[in-house]
Amino acid sequence: MSDSNSLDGLVEALRRLPGVGVKSASRMAYHLLQHDRDGAKLLSRALEQATSTVRHCERCNTFTEAPVCGLCLDARRDATKLCVVETPADQAALERTGAFRGYYFVLMGKLSPLDGIGPRELGVSRLFERALDGQVSEVILATNFTAEGEATAHVIGEALRQRGLTVTRLARGVPAGSELEYVDLGTIAHALVDRR
Amino acid sequence: MSDSNSLDGLVEALRRLPGVGVKSASRMAYHLLQHDRDGAKLLSRALEQATSTVRHCERCNTFTEAPVCGLCLDARRDATKLCVVETPADQAALERTGAFRGYYFVLMGKLSPLDGIGPRELGVSRLFERALDGQVSEVILATNFTAEGEATAHVIGEALRQRGLTVTRLARGVPAGSELEYVDLGTIAHALVDRR
Repeated sequence: MSDSNSLDGLVEALRRLPGVGVKSASRMAYHLLQHDRDGAKLLSRALEQATSTVRHCERCNTFTEAPVCGLCLDARRDATKLCVVETPADQAALERTGAFRGYYFVLMGKLSPLDGIGPRELGVSRLFERALDGQVSEVILATNFTAEGEATAHVIGEALRQRGLTVTRLARGVPAGSELEYVDLGTIAHALVDRR
Repeated sequence: MSDSNSLDGLVEALRRLPGVGVKSASRMAYHLLQHDRDGAKLLSRALEQATSTVRHCERCNTFTEAPVCGLCLDARRDATKLCVVETPADQAALERTGAFRGYYFVLMGKLSPLDGIGPRELGVSRLFERALDGQVSEVILATNFTAEGEATAHVIGEALRQRGLTVTRLARGVPAGSELEYVDLGTIAHALVDRR
């Protein structure tokens, strides 16, 4: 493509990023080389550093550099409640609400049979181990309300109920601040069924 | 944000990429660390390699690893014609047409007074040096047909005409394969004025 193998290699490598095609990758490569070589070096070092130091928390499976993450080490939290989320970003969103004081388990994905991700690939057995530590009494399923997230919640929920735990799911309903006229029908139907 | 400084650093570094905000950067970082650590290492090495080896061609200013790029070294091309483009991507688009057999000069940008990019910042003097090598007789301005691209073409064109060179601009007109009904009025007006 270009006159430089290194440049072509950089464009190819940038295409490994999610949501980046060949045009975006070229634009990124040109930008870095023309206007922000410091940024390119910074990114190179950050990638190197992150791949060599970031691993999974032994308790909750989130990204951390220590064997166990800071949140799992916080003894002031409620050990009877375990919240299951798909990603660290979902966990961060829940934490920002300040409404949950228990511990988390981060699946780092969701069941997705079409992509070949079943319970084994998702490492669900580690969640069961964590949930059956004797202290946890309630597991709150906070996977996303997408088809795959719902399926994940269903499979995990059934298995945990059979093992004697209380299993709950985040409430479905009308979002705060919204007008009924503009809310989709499925959401209103759920809000009616789950009325309190 | 997260439990890992390396992860936060990676998200920050990814935000240096053009068009990438904090949500995309997080998604990219999670994807690389969870699903594609090989890709992350590859990208790290590609960035390192490109920043240390890629420089500008001494003749046409495009990205290359040699002092002079392969296209400038190709003696079979027409040395009387010099085509001025904004970016290597624009050059590649022209090359793909196979309709131009002269040499190029790549500005690596465009005049943009609002961003503080004047003729000096753009390195226009190097273009003048190249164009006045005694062999070039026609300079084809192939900057983009945006406001900034047009202004760049105007400024460069005037200066080169004063120095006695023939200066031409890519034709404006109706794109191949389009129906007049759906072409914007400015384009049709230009096509009428430039009819042949």
